[in-house]
Amino acid sequence: MNAPDKFAPLLTLTREPFPASTKVFVPGTQAGVQVPMREIALTNGERVTVYDTSGPYTDPTVSIDVRKGLAPVRAAWIEARGDTEAYSGRERQALDDGVKHEVPDAHAAERIAALRGEAAALQRTPRRAKGGIGAGANVTQMHYARQGIVTPEMEYIAIRENGKRDWMREYLGDPEREARLRGNPMGARIPEIITPEFVREEVARGRAIIPANINHPELEPMIIGRNFGVKINANIGNSAVTSSIEEEVEKLVWSIRWGGDTVMDLSTGKNIHTTRDWIVRNSPVPIGTVPIYQALEKVGGVAEDLSWEIFRDTLIEQAEQGIDYFTIHAGVRLPFIHLTTKRRTGIVSRGGSILAKWCITHHKENFLYTHFEEICEIMKAYDVSFSLGDGLRPGSGADANDEAQFAELRTLGELTQIAWKHDVQTMIEGPGHVPMHLIQANMDEQLKHCHEAPFYTLGPLTIDIAPGYDHIASAIGAAMIGWMGTAMLCYVTPKEHLGLPDRDDVKQGIIAYKIAAHAADIAKGHPGARARDDAMSKARFEFRWRDQFALGLDPDTAEAYHDETLPKDSSKEA
Amino acid sequence: MNAPDKFAPLLTLTREPFPASTKVFVPGTQAGVQVPMREIALTNGERVTVYDTSGPYTDPTVSIDVRKGLAPVRAAWIEARGDTEAYSGRERQALDDGVKHEVPDAHAAERIAALRGEAAALQRTPRRAKGGIGAGANVTQMHYARQGIVTPEMEYIAIRENGKRDWMREYLGDPEREARLRGNPMGARIPEIITPEFVREEVARGRAIIPANINHPELEPMIIGRNFGVKINANIGNSAVTSSIEEEVEKLVWSIRWGGDTVMDLSTGKNIHTTRDWIVRNSPVPIGTVPIYQALEKVGGVAEDLSWEIFRDTLIEQAEQGIDYFTIHAGVRLPFIHLTTKRRTGIVSRGGSILAKWCITHHKENFLYTHFEEICEIMKAYDVSFSLGDGLRPGSGADANDEAQFAELRTLGELTQIAWKHDVQTMIEGPGHVPMHLIQANMDEQLKHCHEAPFYTLGPLTIDIAPGYDHIASAIGAAMIGWMGTAMLCYVTPKEHLGLPDRDDVKQGIIAYKIAAHAADIAKGHPGARARDDAMSKARFEFRWRDQFALGLDPDTAEAYHDETLPKDSSKEA
Repeated sequence: MNAPDKFAPLLTLTREPFPASTKVFVPGTQAGVQVPMREIALTNGERVTVYDTSGPYTDPTVSIDVRKGLAPVRAAWIEARGDTEAYSGRERQALDDGVKHEVPDAHAAERIAALRGEAAALQRTPRRAKGGIGAGANVTQMHYARQGIVTPEMEYIAIRENGKRDWMREYLGDPEREARLRGNPMGARIPEIITPEFVREEVARGRAIIPANINHPELEPMIIGRNFGVKINANIGNSAVTSSIEEEVEKLVWSIRWGGDTVMDLSTGKNIHTTRDWIVRNSPVPIGTVPIYQALEKVGGVAEDLSWEIFRDTLIEQAEQGIDYFTIHAGVRLPFIHLTTKRRTGIVSRGGSILAKWCITHHKENFLYTHFEEICEIMKAYDVSFSLGDGLRPGSGADANDEAQFAELRTLGELTQIAWKHDVQTMIEGPGHVPMHLIQANMDEQLKHCHEAPFYTLGPLTIDIAPGYDHIASAIGAAMIGWMGTAMLCYVTPKEHLGLPDRDDVKQGIIAYKIAAHAADIAKGHPGARARDDAMSKARFEFRWRDQFALGLDPDTAEAYHDETLPKDSSKEA
Repeated sequence: MNAPDKFAPLLTLTREPFPASTKVFVPGTQAGVQVPMREIALTNGERVTVYDTSGPYTDPTVSIDVRKGLAPVRAAWIEARGDTEAYSGRERQALDDGVKHEVPDAHAAERIAALRGEAAALQRTPRRAKGGIGAGANVTQMHYARQGIVTPEMEYIAIRENGKRDWMREYLGDPEREARLRGNPMGARIPEIITPEFVREEVARGRAIIPANINHPELEPMIIGRNFGVKINANIGNSAVTSSIEEEVEKLVWSIRWGGDTVMDLSTGKNIHTTRDWIVRNSPVPIGTVPIYQALEKVGGVAEDLSWEIFRDTLIEQAEQGIDYFTIHAGVRLPFIHLTTKRRTGIVSRGGSILAKWCITHHKENFLYTHFEEICEIMKAYDVSFSLGDGLRPGSGADANDEAQFAELRTLGELTQIAWKHDVQTMIEGPGHVPMHLIQANMDEQLKHCHEAPFYTLGPLTIDIAPGYDHIASAIGAAMIGWMGTAMLCYVTPKEHLGLPDRDDVKQGIIAYKIAAHAADIAKGHPGARARDDAMSKARFEFRWRDQFALGLDPDTAEAYHDETLPKDSSKEA
């Protein structure tokens, strides 16, 4: 791990725009809708515009202070809806940033005070639905959608998903080619042009979600659904050794620079609460968490000491901070746990293990399952989306598609119906480890039992014998399941199964998953997805090297590889 | 590139056995059949045996001198068949190791003499079918197979493909699991046990080939066919700067260490002939070439100066050296060339471009097509297999599955029938660049028009925008087409489209393709393929780290990654 003082300069570095690229904005009709895109100026005068997850960081005209956070682009929209209220918020506790056994330590209090002081400007007054939790108010995008309201978020997303189409005519204009390359959507129904109304319909139907907590106004809205571009998630977590604002924010910025559409903060141990402030306030992408991780810290790591009360309090704590989606392992039901006993690799999900232990010790049903409607009440007061966790996902090809996995999946489908009854946005997490020939069944079962709620899979890894290369073993499965209808792919890094990913591992994982997602978009026939490939191919045919670098997913590596072996101009005509 | 004097120590390094591994031999019933496998001793006392492409190099009991070459394990079998004869061979010419414009240079003669002197012990007296080319003698494995003869090569392959099965019982014995994970062979018919008779039938039917030139007695026989394990090919080529025996052999040894099942020598420029001697004499895997590359050097790089006579002479030159398969672009027919004019990326195959230029300049049909039966006469006198090249393969997703590509494919099907009439073993090369949703059509068309002759594809790359990561973009396509029935996958390295691969790029490409091939084997339900994954998963569940490293495709990287972030023992229980 790099020392924290190295991160400030790194952060400056990751703010550099990509080669030949500028940030452009496409305005919407609603106030404040200005959708950022990356425009690449090619050497032949063409301009190519691509989807941009990197936020204001790659815009040199924006001055950013990570100790103050990003501009709240959504604040006026949230305010204008008039259905939320600012309030004092839950009272903060030392334990939010600590672990149980440290509570009595005076030193811990000092440490936390220092941490919080450093991030004082990042504290926002939380908002909630008017009347608070349980009062029946509902501020979810799904709730608006079902009332027929096209929110600014929805219009923003429609523009963002379409991208600019004018430059694509050069590439998508040949009728023979278009007919020959027409995608196979495998049941998806992607319109030629995404309208704000289409976004609304998809969200109302539950087929797509817009993770957008009202306490995360810094967010550039994005959508997760099978009729939109396939998205990817990258995971980050606090360092075991030390934390600084710069370090944590730099990890985030690095992830979104290379294409992370959402980022999950999987921090454990100390400083969880304050680190989360740092991340959310500086994040233009949705942030997801697994709240049971923090709850477990609060009970000193003893799973059986968890309770609904501690968990509920943690949900509110994180909802107030602005987390956009929660992984909730409510499908790990007591009657399913014995189904894992004959498995090759038992229960490998951390959340799944924690809850299985709790259920077995108390011989009681999972409290996330029994309190599910209460969780919905919290979610709808802040617009936090569910990511229903697959705590019984297979940890090896040997355990793929077994009864434990599918029993849980069917339960997640039941829970989806309950969430939808509350107009709470919901996606479903999926495996994990699945050989290629069993992938389609995962998608089929998910579509059938979860009623087309967006699927969000980890890989899946297609084989088990590639430690050190699991980003590749899983990119194969990810590309396939993305084509079949999975809406978001959770990345896997080369360090999977071996250790903690460093900066380069994170990048390797993200690029592998951008490849998988893009391959899926092209196979599905996502409108315009192929144009960038065609622009690349034309640049290749015409030996325009600079344009090839700029159009690639990783211009730096492409240029470095080229120069390494073919530094001379004459070699550029290989 | 490393200087040549660095390669001798590197070669020593690549001779190191893999961790916890020893070379074991399984005997057959025929004389001299001793099939090498790699046995991994796990820390729990289990022994896992895996397919081993690395040859005697990973056997510390074998002393190897690259200036003398490997032991000729097949020599007695070839001799015993009594249908071949040693002969003086084609007279060598300075041009074999040079390029046309250098011929008059006295310095060139000196250089070549020195090169050849260095490799004097690698010169073997060539053999051919009794009576020589065109006399009707036929020494191909297909010819024997069709006569009902089970050769030692066939028995060797049957044993090699089965592997040892006893250790697998632990992993493949659960009926519920076996039923759940049963492969989907997509039309392949893979028996539970591969018998020598089955190998014979598949070769007789043309559904599999055994590339095994009678002048390559050092070969450890292997098979390429859809009813066997999916194989991979790695490409090597001489260095532009300098050549030494150690350097060229080290590239080969490095490639087969990581799992290259065959290696193509794509050398161009100087020293081609002698470099090939070095490679073939030291190679336990089949070596393929593209003879038109050398023929082009002989005419000074001017495609239109090529002639059937020069090409024919080059085929004989290489057949005498022991090349096991030739890429022959006989399907690039004159009437197809205009079909490429509307393409995004025209003709990208080097061989395809050379022949298209020749055809257009002379406005004549491709001489490889018009002389195809004469080529068959050469192939059957040495048992060189055809790899019918797809000179019109698409160079971008935009050009995938177009009429130029499929017109050539149908021609390759016609040529396959002609080759089979001569009992010449034949496989068919395929793309290249194909989006996921168009891959199945490639396999379907190939099976239909080429009568199940083995398919040998380059990737295919599923997207075009990943320069620097094309090994990943193509491993996705390779895994899918492997599952669908492709018999061998030609690797792509991270330097594809950018420059020349170095040592690490070669390894990255090979590992990505081992992943793709193994994922395909598991999806097809290749018997026993899953057992190694299960052994890995069990080791994972039991935190046996050393066993995880040893069972992985790349033990060195897995261990290094583990130790990098989790060096302490306590961390090994993550």
